Amino acid sequence: MRHAIIMAGGSGTRFWPASRARRPKQLLSLWGDEPLIHSTSSRLAPPIPTSHQWVITSADILDAVRAVLPDLPPSQIIAEPCPRNTAPCVGLAAALLQADADAQGAPSPLIGVFPSDHLIRDLPAWHACLDAAFDAAAASPSIITLGIQPTRPETGFGYIEASSSPNGLTPLPVRRFVEKPDHATALSYLGSGNFLWNAGIFVFRASTMLALIDRHLPSLSAGLRDLAAYWRTPQWPDAFARIFSTLPSISIDYAVMEPAAAQGAVQTIPASFTWSDVGHWGSLDEAAQPDPNGNITLGESLTLDSQRCVVAQLSSAKRLVVTLGVHDLVVVDTDDALLVCDRDQVQRVREVIDHLKASGRTDLL
Amino acid sequence: MRHAIIMAGGSGTRFWPASRARRPKQLLSLWGDEPLIHSTSSRLAPPIPTSHQWVITSADILDAVRAVLPDLPPSQIIAEPCPRNTAPCVGLAAALLQADADAQGAPSPLIGVFPSDHLIRDLPAWHACLDAAFDAAAASPSIITLGIQPTRPETGFGYIEASSSPNGLTPLPVRRFVEKPDHATALSYLGSGNFLWNAGIFVFRASTMLALIDRHLPSLSAGLRDLAAYWRTPQWPDAFARIFSTLPSISIDYAVMEPAAAQGAVQTIPASFTWSDVGHWGSLDEAAQPDPNGNITLGESLTLDSQRCVVAQLSSAKRLVVTLGVHDLVVVDTDDALLVCDRDQVQRVREVIDHLKASGRTDLL
Repeated sequence: MRHAIIMAGGSGTRFWPASRARRPKQLLSLWGDEPLIHSTSSRLAPPIPTSHQWVITSADILDAVRAVLPDLPPSQIIAEPCPRNTAPCVGLAAALLQADADAQGAPSPLIGVFPSDHLIRDLPAWHACLDAAFDAAAASPSIITLGIQPTRPETGFGYIEASSSPNGLTPLPVRRFVEKPDHATALSYLGSGNFLWNAGIFVFRASTMLALIDRHLPSLSAGLRDLAAYWRTPQWPDAFARIFSTLPSISIDYAVMEPAAAQGAVQTIPASFTWSDVGHWGSLDEAAQPDPNGNITLGESLTLDSQRCVVAQLSSAKRLVVTLGVHDLVVVDTDDALLVCDRDQVQRVREVIDHLKASGRTDLL
Repeated sequence: MRHAIIMAGGSGTRFWPASRARRPKQLLSLWGDEPLIHSTSSRLAPPIPTSHQWVITSADILDAVRAVLPDLPPSQIIAEPCPRNTAPCVGLAAALLQADADAQGAPSPLIGVFPSDHLIRDLPAWHACLDAAFDAAAASPSIITLGIQPTRPETGFGYIEASSSPNGLTPLPVRRFVEKPDHATALSYLGSGNFLWNAGIFVFRASTMLALIDRHLPSLSAGLRDLAAYWRTPQWPDAFARIFSTLPSISIDYAVMEPAAAQGAVQTIPASFTWSDVGHWGSLDEAAQPDPNGNITLGESLTLDSQRCVVAQLSSAKRLVVTLGVHDLVVVDTDDALLVCDRDQVQRVREVIDHLKASGRTDLL
């Protein structure tokens, strides 16, 4: 049985003022007709129907997530009692689905973990990769990651070093995971052919993940066993809130994937689909088609003698946004805040958040 | 008796989107606590009390002008039946005030003409110039213009060539008026010392102006005589509408001032006050004090690592405007339109107006 865990805890400050604490990136529809998390769910089916999809999110946005995913059973959209990074979240999914399987006398289930806020195009290629990853996870006690073929010397992503160059959808042993490189290192990765972008998508059998957690992060294992004992009992909500907060706050990459790779227990399948993490306003052109002047516009705007601008008119008032004689700007208009930013400095939008916090403007966060 | 004619017919498209067809620049308060036209009226008193001030405006904004000038008798705020440039407007003022004086057996009145939408600082110097101009107009059958000492080689203004360099408030004969010069010519004007900016402020005795119109624009004279015959009669409104539309549409500078200067009938008084025509968003720093980064902000804004920007937050929603890592931009936020423009290209805002007209967005004009 295949299950999907959609990780939807991100706060998405990098798309401020469109994204807010209670409206993070995964709930935005900047890239099409539906929120990113809805697209994420849609493209997992048919291989994984919504009846087998689970969403882990935060209490702040639980209702909003349920509202945009009406096809998922509300009980499968779960709010973490408190933020605890990714290892407890992935471990919890493995432990609970394993408990369900045990109760049914079924084999250990196969689980894929998926970020909720990426863009993936070319659905046939996506489904082929997904199938290959689940098949590989079924055949081997390994974690199977999807590796994205790099197209530029990106310094904003982590990389996966495979043991050899990609060859179709054949799983390759992973030598190691590497953190965000500097530009020179990224260039050498791009040249080597063995390095792939880590998109945070991975598939495993529940029993495999639980064994790896037991080996590399035993403090988490104990908590997961406690939690599994309460699963589907009347005491579950209280136990979940109480025990989850005691789990170690650590990332699955650091705590499990990296040591597992070192012992040869991680493989990667080179992805053949078009992927973007649409990480900031400046990367919107990976998702939308620029006009002949390189401008990308959302909503009503008039771009006069303007080049390479991103203009997003998101206010309910449908104000007309006019740019005149400017270039390389990001202009984002919302009901209560307007951002005008140099396109090459959009990653600094976090500084705006910091200023708003410091000045008590929490209404704009 | 001294009278003031405040010319308030301007459409002020250059401050779009703050200025609109029905909210032209003279009605805006971008430069302080009150609309420009209110400041214009206020600083004419005490030398010319509001009981002796007249405003000539357009029907479109008559009610709005009356609303911001509650101290003026409403009957002295007059809407032209149709736009006819400045010569009929100035001539009308001279003809009607002369008719009033004739009816009272009084001497021909002294009249000053003032644009409604300029900024003038240093009130004592302003009042001294005003007094000197009225005194000179009383003493001589000449038109007395105020000339602004140039501080830069401005190519956007007309110039007044005086017969010699300024010497206090002594009236100097005017050799000629010159149109907007190119940069090299403007530089030579700045160096010469004899050239002053034409601010469109001039004072005359009604009989002097009427004689000059009679000589240089006789087609206007006839119409003015017709109009004066109906002044303060029950037929006035109908006669005004009917006759005014038959007057020649021409500027007072071209039709009267230039030929009058050629015959030695114009003098200039060098102004000693601080003046700005605040002609566009980029000239706002003549009116407001920039912050240490050269930014000028109106309304709530957060300028992070931004230099030499003009940020005007004028929406009723009081949206927060944030600029990040940008320079030399004009950002103007209103309820229904937002402008982001290169500061050196603000004069091109007229192109926006043209585009809006062409695309039928008359609601935004």
